[in-house]
Amino acid sequence: MDLKQIIMSRYATKKFDGKKIDQKKIEELLELIRHAPSSFNIQPWKIKIITDQKLKEQLKPVSMTQDQITTSSHLLVFCANTDIMGNIDKLDAQFKASGMQDEKRAASVNMMKDAFENASEEYKLSWAQRQVYLALENALLGAKALGFDSCPMEGFDSEQYAKILNLPKHIVPTALCTVGFAADKPRPKIRFPKEDVFF
Amino acid sequence: MDLKQIIMSRYATKKFDGKKIDQKKIEELLELIRHAPSSFNIQPWKIKIITDQKLKEQLKPVSMTQDQITTSSHLLVFCANTDIMGNIDKLDAQFKASGMQDEKRAASVNMMKDAFENASEEYKLSWAQRQVYLALENALLGAKALGFDSCPMEGFDSEQYAKILNLPKHIVPTALCTVGFAADKPRPKIRFPKEDVFF
Repeated sequence: MDLKQIIMSRYATKKFDGKKIDQKKIEELLELIRHAPSSFNIQPWKIKIITDQKLKEQLKPVSMTQDQITTSSHLLVFCANTDIMGNIDKLDAQFKASGMQDEKRAASVNMMKDAFENASEEYKLSWAQRQVYLALENALLGAKALGFDSCPMEGFDSEQYAKILNLPKHIVPTALCTVGFAADKPRPKIRFPKEDVFF
Repeated sequence: MDLKQIIMSRYATKKFDGKKIDQKKIEELLELIRHAPSSFNIQPWKIKIITDQKLKEQLKPVSMTQDQITTSSHLLVFCANTDIMGNIDKLDAQFKASGMQDEKRAASVNMMKDAFENASEEYKLSWAQRQVYLALENALLGAKALGFDSCPMEGFDSEQYAKILNLPKHIVPTALCTVGFAADKPRPKIRFPKEDVFF
């Protein structure tokens, strides 16, 4: 399937058939997500993968009781990671391991640190959440490319998710992506006309 | 090219060769962007397309003098549109035109309006900006799929862009996507290991 076909045929699946996706396919999906771009390549995200049915049942009431939670094969909880300085340090270690010249490495790391030094917690969260959506789009397109379906979801209680999943404060549940095999049918896509979007 | 090849070969191009992309290809790219998903399908974005070299020269100093601005074929300015209620009304009209049952249409529109009724301006902006990044990822992948290159950019002065482009207050420049033909080479991709991203 070419990219256009993927984009045009992907849709927010409201109900899955409960069948499990092969682990090998899931691994392929995770590689597509992991290689998403992000500003400065800081990758400010962590993704919790949930397959346990009991845990899904527990999360459903704090997800507006949406059927996708329990009928999906896998529930991916896309979290923003606001420990941006921590990620920069990890990148620094990777740069070093890759043999990058010390001067270049320091310049790159300092530029990144300068950009976030005085950033408020609100800004860091908002910025990290934006990046998460780049990875989320890879998940949505990736699912279709790999032969299954997906639903991006914002209708859930982020604080309850953090509590149930026992997440530290800097890992903020931001969007869900349920994946599985559709048990519904897509409706025709409705989008604003070109002349309304581009100017 | 399959999606994996697109994702793995796309990179943030630092310099383009200045050649123009065929208008037909650009039109195809815009269709991929326009069909991006967004929460509630509200599509809270507007995208300014810039090809005029003089305007690009004017924008370069407020874009950290990055070469991509002036060497690209097209500069796409991805703006968040915080007039969410306005977009909901436009969707309502589209639902009506599509023949959707009145009761269903009202329920759908009311659910959307309820979700944003008490939202602060800060939340609306942050939320809209997140959605923009779904469309941005389609642009980045779309460019590669269509045979050219791209660079996502956050290093620019949003307020100066709004001023120079004479944008109303609710249209907020959020990210740039320059597209063209690369005049540089990709470096190996560095990403955090799988066990660090997924849990």
